[in-house]
Amino acid sequence: MKAYTQMSAEELRSEKQDLLKRIDEFKAMNLALDMTRGKPSPEQLALSNDLFEGLKDSSFKSKSGADVRNYGVPDGIVEARELFAEVLGTDKDNIYIGNGSSLNLMFDALMRAYVFGEHDSEKPWGQIENRKWLCPVPGYDRHFKVTETLGFELITVPLKEDGPDMDIVEDLVKDPTVLGMWSVPCYTNPDGYVYSEEVCRRLASMKTGAKDFRIFWDNAYCVHHLYDEPEKQESIPDILSLCKEAGNASRVYEFSSTSKITFAGAGLSCFATNEENMKHSKKYTSVQTIGANKINQYAHILYMPDLAAMKKQMSKHAAFLRPKFELTLSIMDKELNGTDTVKWHKPNGGYFISAYVFPGTAKATVAKCKELGVAFTPAGATYPYGNDPDDSNIRIAPSFPSLADIEKAVEVFCVCAKLTAIEKIEEAL
Amino acid sequence: MKAYTQMSAEELRSEKQDLLKRIDEFKAMNLALDMTRGKPSPEQLALSNDLFEGLKDSSFKSKSGADVRNYGVPDGIVEARELFAEVLGTDKDNIYIGNGSSLNLMFDALMRAYVFGEHDSEKPWGQIENRKWLCPVPGYDRHFKVTETLGFELITVPLKEDGPDMDIVEDLVKDPTVLGMWSVPCYTNPDGYVYSEEVCRRLASMKTGAKDFRIFWDNAYCVHHLYDEPEKQESIPDILSLCKEAGNASRVYEFSSTSKITFAGAGLSCFATNEENMKHSKKYTSVQTIGANKINQYAHILYMPDLAAMKKQMSKHAAFLRPKFELTLSIMDKELNGTDTVKWHKPNGGYFISAYVFPGTAKATVAKCKELGVAFTPAGATYPYGNDPDDSNIRIAPSFPSLADIEKAVEVFCVCAKLTAIEKIEEAL
Repeated sequence: MKAYTQMSAEELRSEKQDLLKRIDEFKAMNLALDMTRGKPSPEQLALSNDLFEGLKDSSFKSKSGADVRNYGVPDGIVEARELFAEVLGTDKDNIYIGNGSSLNLMFDALMRAYVFGEHDSEKPWGQIENRKWLCPVPGYDRHFKVTETLGFELITVPLKEDGPDMDIVEDLVKDPTVLGMWSVPCYTNPDGYVYSEEVCRRLASMKTGAKDFRIFWDNAYCVHHLYDEPEKQESIPDILSLCKEAGNASRVYEFSSTSKITFAGAGLSCFATNEENMKHSKKYTSVQTIGANKINQYAHILYMPDLAAMKKQMSKHAAFLRPKFELTLSIMDKELNGTDTVKWHKPNGGYFISAYVFPGTAKATVAKCKELGVAFTPAGATYPYGNDPDDSNIRIAPSFPSLADIEKAVEVFCVCAKLTAIEKIEEAL
Repeated sequence: MKAYTQMSAEELRSEKQDLLKRIDEFKAMNLALDMTRGKPSPEQLALSNDLFEGLKDSSFKSKSGADVRNYGVPDGIVEARELFAEVLGTDKDNIYIGNGSSLNLMFDALMRAYVFGEHDSEKPWGQIENRKWLCPVPGYDRHFKVTETLGFELITVPLKEDGPDMDIVEDLVKDPTVLGMWSVPCYTNPDGYVYSEEVCRRLASMKTGAKDFRIFWDNAYCVHHLYDEPEKQESIPDILSLCKEAGNASRVYEFSSTSKITFAGAGLSCFATNEENMKHSKKYTSVQTIGANKINQYAHILYMPDLAAMKKQMSKHAAFLRPKFELTLSIMDKELNGTDTVKWHKPNGGYFISAYVFPGTAKATVAKCKELGVAFTPAGATYPYGNDPDDSNIRIAPSFPSLADIEKAVEVFCVCAKLTAIEKIEEAL
C-alpha cells in the first residue's frame, strides 16, 4: 500500500470509494461492540473464583498473631506487606496496605498533602497559589482528574519510548510551584512504554524548585507481562532506592494493586514510601480509619503467598490477553501498514494499545466508529482536560471483548481511521 | 453500705483498710486483663466464619446484572444499598456503600467539606476561621480526633439520658462558625443512652447560623440490642425524614456499618444522605475511587440478605454479650451500691458501660487499676482533647474479655474506685 500522503487525488478518491463500501457493509452488520476500558475479561476474573476457599480451614490468624477478623493492624497484616515488598523490590516497612483501589490511595495522599502538607512542606499544598502538576502524555485520565479536581494546573510532558522527555521535565521542575508528577513507569497507559533506567535515575536525582516535590509512581502493571519469555518481560529499578541514593529519599509515593491480578477493584492496594513519608502519612491515616479489610488481605495471602505464586497467576492472565493483543496488532498491520496514516507501538505488557491516527482526525475517527456501533475511549481522554493538541491519540483496550468482537471492532477502527485520514488530506488539497 | 461522704473519719479509715487489704490480694494475683476497647470477642467473630461460603456456588452477578468481580457500580451493588436502606429506614438511593470502616467515610466526608465545601456552602470549610464542631460528651474519641485534626475547635455539650442538652445545642448553633455536630443517637458511646424522638426533632428543626450546618449521625449501634424482648430494643426515628419535614433536608450525613455484625473493620460501611448531598459527594468520590469492594458486598448479601437475617445474627451476638454486661453490672451493684461514689446507667444495647467515679478520681482510678494489671480506656478519652473537666468518666468495655476475666477486672475497678474516692474525701477533711 502506498502512503496516503503520496497518493494523487485520483488514487485517494478510489481508495475512499473502497473504504466507503466497507463502511456500508459494517453498517449492515448492526454492530454493538465496546473497546472502551481496560477491564479484565470474565475468563480472567474466573481465575480467582476460589480466592476465599482458603478461609474455610484457616485460623484467621496472621503470623503476627493478630486475629484478622477483629480491629487492629492499621497498616495491613505483615504477610501482605511482605508480598508487596517482594513485588516492588522494597522493604515491608515501606508498605501500607489499602482496600481494593490504588486510585483511592493516590487521591487520599494528595488530599493529605493539600490539607496538611508533606513532612517537608512549608505549608499545605492547598495554600500554594498557581500550583502545578506534571502529566506525561498520553496518560491515564483518572490520574489527571485527581490533580485537576484539587486545583493543580496540569502541565503536559511528552512521553517517549523510554519515558517522559527528561530535558523538558528537568527544566519544568525548577519552578517551585511545580509540586509533583504522575508516572506509570512500566507499560505506560496507554502506550505500553517502559521507563529506562536512565530516566528513572534522572527523575530520582533531578533538582526541583519545590523541596517537597513528589512523584506519584503508579506501578500498576509491574507484573502484567504479555509474554512468559523473560527477555520480553520488561522491568524498572526500585525507585525508592534510586531516590534515596540521590539524596531525595522522600521524593516518591509508589502505588500498586492486585486489581488486574485477582479481582478488579476488590483486590489489595498499597503504597510504598520512605520512613519519613510513611510516618507523616500514618499521622493522618490513623485518624481516618481503623485500617483496611484484613480478611481480604488474609484471603489473598492464603491464595497467593508470594511473588512466585503471583507470577503463575499472571501467566494465566497472559494466556487470555496475548491472543487479543496479537489479533489487534495483526489487523492493524494488515489494514494500515504502508498507508502512513496511523502509528503505534507493540507493547510487551499492560492493558492497552495506543494508536496515533492521522493528525486532526482522532475525534472524527472515534465518532465514525460510534456511528457503526463500535465504542472506543473518547479521543482526548488520554490528555489533561481531554485536550489532545494533535487530535491524534486513541486508546484501544482489547482485554475485555472476545476475539470475534475484537476482530470486527479493530477492522472498523482501521477503516474509519483511513477514511478520516483521506478526508483530512483532501481538505488540504 | 453507708455513703462515703456521710462516713466519719474513723469509718473511712476502717473502710480504707479493708480496701487496701483487697488491693494486696489483687497484687498477689499478677493480673493481666484488658478492658480497653469495644472489640467483639473471638466467639462473636466466629459467628461469621462462613461469610464467604456462598461465593462458591454463586454467579458473581448482582441482580442488576453487574459482575461483582469487575470494575463499575461505584456506589455499591443495589442489594447492599437495599439492605442498609431497610436497616436505616430510608431509600436505597440515599445510600452509598463504602469499605469496612464507617470512620473512613466520616473522615472522607469531612475532608471533602474542608477542601470543596458542601453543596450549600459559601466557601470550603477549611477557609472558615475559628470553625467549631459540637461534641456531646462523653463521646467517642475517634470522632473527636477527626474534627480536631481538621482544625475545628471542639465545643462540648452535656449528654443527658434522652440525648444532648438541646437548650444548649440550640443556643450554640446560632453561631455561624459552628458547622456541625457529632451524634451517636442509639446506644451512645459510652453511656448507652438513646436519643428521644423530641431530641431528634429538635435537632432536625433547630435554626442554625451556618446554612450548611451538618450533623454527622453515627448510627453504629442501631441493631445492637442486648435483649431479644422488643420492649427493651430501643430505636430512633429516621433522621433524614425528620430533617426533610423540617425543611432542612441536607442537614444530615448518617453512617452505619456491619463491623460489629460480621467482621470488625472488614464488613460493609455506608453513608445515607439526601439527594443534594449525595450528588455533591459523588462529584468527588467518583474521582477518588472506582468504588468499594463489591465482592465483599456480594458475599455479605448472600450471607445476610435482609434485616430479618441481620436481626437473627444480632440475637446470636447478644447471647454472648448479655452475660458479660450483666456480670459487670451485678458486680458494680454489689460493690458500689450505697457508697454514693460511682454512678452509671444500665444500657439495653451497644458496647459499653459508662462509669462516673467520684469527681476528680478517674485518672487515679485507672492508674491504680493499671498498677494491678488491669487496663481500662484512659480517663478523659471520652472527652475532646482527652480532657474530662470532672475527671470522673471511665468507659468499661466488657465485650472482648471472658466472663472470668470480667469478674476479676470489674472487681478491681470497683475497689480502686472506692479507694480513690476515700482518698479524695480525706483530702478535703
